[in-house]
Amino acid sequence: MKEIKFIENIRARAAAEKDVIAGIGDDAAVLKHDSKQHLLWAADMLVEDVHFSLKDASFNKIGRKAVAVNISDIAAMGGVPKYITVSIGVPPYVKIRNLNNIYDGIFKICKAYGICLVGGDTNRSGKLVIDVSIIGSVEKKRLVLRSAAKEGDIILVTGPIPDGRKTHFDFTPRLKEARFLTGKYKISSMIDISDGIAPDIGRICCQSGVGCVISEEAVPLSEGLSIKDAFYYGENFELLFTMSPKEARRLFLDLSKKNSFKKVFFVIGEITNKNKGMYSRGKEGVLKKLKMEGYRHI
Amino acid sequence: MKEIKFIENIRARAAAEKDVIAGIGDDAAVLKHDSKQHLLWAADMLVEDVHFSLKDASFNKIGRKAVAVNISDIAAMGGVPKYITVSIGVPPYVKIRNLNNIYDGIFKICKAYGICLVGGDTNRSGKLVIDVSIIGSVEKKRLVLRSAAKEGDIILVTGPIPDGRKTHFDFTPRLKEARFLTGKYKISSMIDISDGIAPDIGRICCQSGVGCVISEEAVPLSEGLSIKDAFYYGENFELLFTMSPKEARRLFLDLSKKNSFKKVFFVIGEITNKNKGMYSRGKEGVLKKLKMEGYRHI
Repeated sequence: MKEIKFIENIRARAAAEKDVIAGIGDDAAVLKHDSKQHLLWAADMLVEDVHFSLKDASFNKIGRKAVAVNISDIAAMGGVPKYITVSIGVPPYVKIRNLNNIYDGIFKICKAYGICLVGGDTNRSGKLVIDVSIIGSVEKKRLVLRSAAKEGDIILVTGPIPDGRKTHFDFTPRLKEARFLTGKYKISSMIDISDGIAPDIGRICCQSGVGCVISEEAVPLSEGLSIKDAFYYGENFELLFTMSPKEARRLFLDLSKKNSFKKVFFVIGEITNKNKGMYSRGKEGVLKKLKMEGYRHI
Repeated sequence: MKEIKFIENIRARAAAEKDVIAGIGDDAAVLKHDSKQHLLWAADMLVEDVHFSLKDASFNKIGRKAVAVNISDIAAMGGVPKYITVSIGVPPYVKIRNLNNIYDGIFKICKAYGICLVGGDTNRSGKLVIDVSIIGSVEKKRLVLRSAAKEGDIILVTGPIPDGRKTHFDFTPRLKEARFLTGKYKISSMIDISDGIAPDIGRICCQSGVGCVISEEAVPLSEGLSIKDAFYYGENFELLFTMSPKEARRLFLDLSKKNSFKKVFFVIGEITNKNKGMYSRGKEGVLKKLKMEGYRHI
C-alpha cells in the first residue's frame, strides 16, 4: 500500500488548475486543448533489473516495450498517441550500436502507430533507464477516466489474460479495441492491466468510490496462467473496463452481427456498492478479499 | 562528438510531421497548438552519481533542480512553463520521507513558477533517477529556435557565468530575462548553457549554419571561474542568445533608461560565416578553435 498512499499524498499536494481536466491518478493526465479535443500526457519509466534484464531481452525489444507501455496508457483513456520524447540513461556496457538497436525498436513501433519522436535526453547512468513521455489526443466524448464506474456496471476485459512474464516485451497495446469501444459505446471507466487485475480494478474502485466482485471462473486465462497471477502479476496490458449492462447488451448484440469488429470481450465481474468492498468469487461462491498489492515497482 | 553524432542520427530517422514545428535538436520540441500559441515540450533526466551525489545535495535540492533544468529549457525557447510530469526511480536507501523531501523541492519551485504537477511514474531502481517532462506554451511571435542565427549577429549572455560546480543546485532559470527579451526584441537564436559556452554556441552554429568568434576577455566570469570552465564546464544555466547589431543597440538603449528592466546583458562575441569555423579570441588576438566537447553526460 506504500506506493498508493505515497501517490495519494502527492496528488493531494498537486495544485488544481482549471486547464487540468484530470491530473495524477489516471493512466494519463488530461489537459484542455480546444473545443473538440483534450490533450493526453503520460510517462512510463523502464529500469534495468526492475522491469527487464539484459539477459532476457534484446535492445530492440526493450525500446519497443518502452513505447508500447505508453501507447497502452493513451489507449486506456480512449485516445490516440501522437508524439513521444525519450529520456535514456546509458550505462558503460551499453554501446552505441546497442543504443541504435533500442532506437530501432522505438522507431518501428512508432511507425506502426503513427507516432512521431520529437525530443528527449541522453545521459550516462549506472544501469539502463528509459523514460518515455507520450502526448496523445482524445475527442471529448471519447474520454474515459477511472473515476466514473457505477454500482451495477459490469466489468470486462479485452481478451484472455496473457502471462505477463512471457509476453511483456511483445504485447500489442489495445488501441484498436479502445478506439472501437469508445467510438460507439459509453465506457464508464477503463485502465490497462499493468499491475494485475486486483490492484487495477482496485484503482477504478478507489477513484470511482465503488466496490466490485470478480468471478474467478469468468476470468479468461491464457494457457498455464494461474488465477493468482492474473490477479496479482500484471504486465499483460489488456484493458479492463466497465459499462452499464444496457450498453454491454448493445455491444454484444453488435459483435454478434456479420462483418462486426472481430474481437471477443469477456465479462469478468460487476461493480458493487463501496460498502461491499472488493472481492473475488471462487468456486462454490466463496468470496475472497482482493488486495491492492500487485507486482509493485516500488 | 559521440553524443552529437548519435543525436544527429536519431534526428535524421525521426519522421517529419506537419504539426511538429521543431523536433529533436532544440531545448524543447515545438508542436502546433492553436492560431496564437505553440506547445513546448521538453524532458530532462537527472541521474545519481552522474548529475548529483547524495553526499553533496539534500533531497529537496535534487527535486528543485530536476524541475529547474526543465524550466530553463522552456525559457530558452521564449515560452512559459505550465505542466510537469515526474518519473522517478527510487533505490532502496531512499526512504519515503526522502521522497517526500524531493517532492517538497519539486512543489516549491512549481509554485514559484506557476507550474502544475499532473502525473508521473514511480519505480524501484538501483540508483536515484528523476526524469521531469515539461509542457509550456509560447506565443508564435516569441518563439526562438537555435537555427536562425545570422552572420553579423552578436552573441550575448544573460549574466556573469557562475561556477556550475557550486551553483547547479541553486541556479535561477532565466525565465524573466527570456520573456523580457522575446517580448520586445527580435532574438535570432537562444540556448541555455547546460554544457558550456563552447558546445552550446556550437549547437547554435551547427543548426544555423554559421561560425562564431567569442572574445575571451568579454566573457563575464564569476569570481574564481576560469575561462576554460566557462567554455567547457556548463551547468550554469545562463542563457546565450544572438541578435542583430541593430536590435542589440535598441536593447541597450532601452536598458540605459530609467525604470527599465533591471538586468545587465553581456556581449561576448559575434556570429561569422560558416566557413570561418568556431573560434575564441584570446589575449593579443590569438584565435583558438572551440571544441564541441563539454561536460558531457554520455
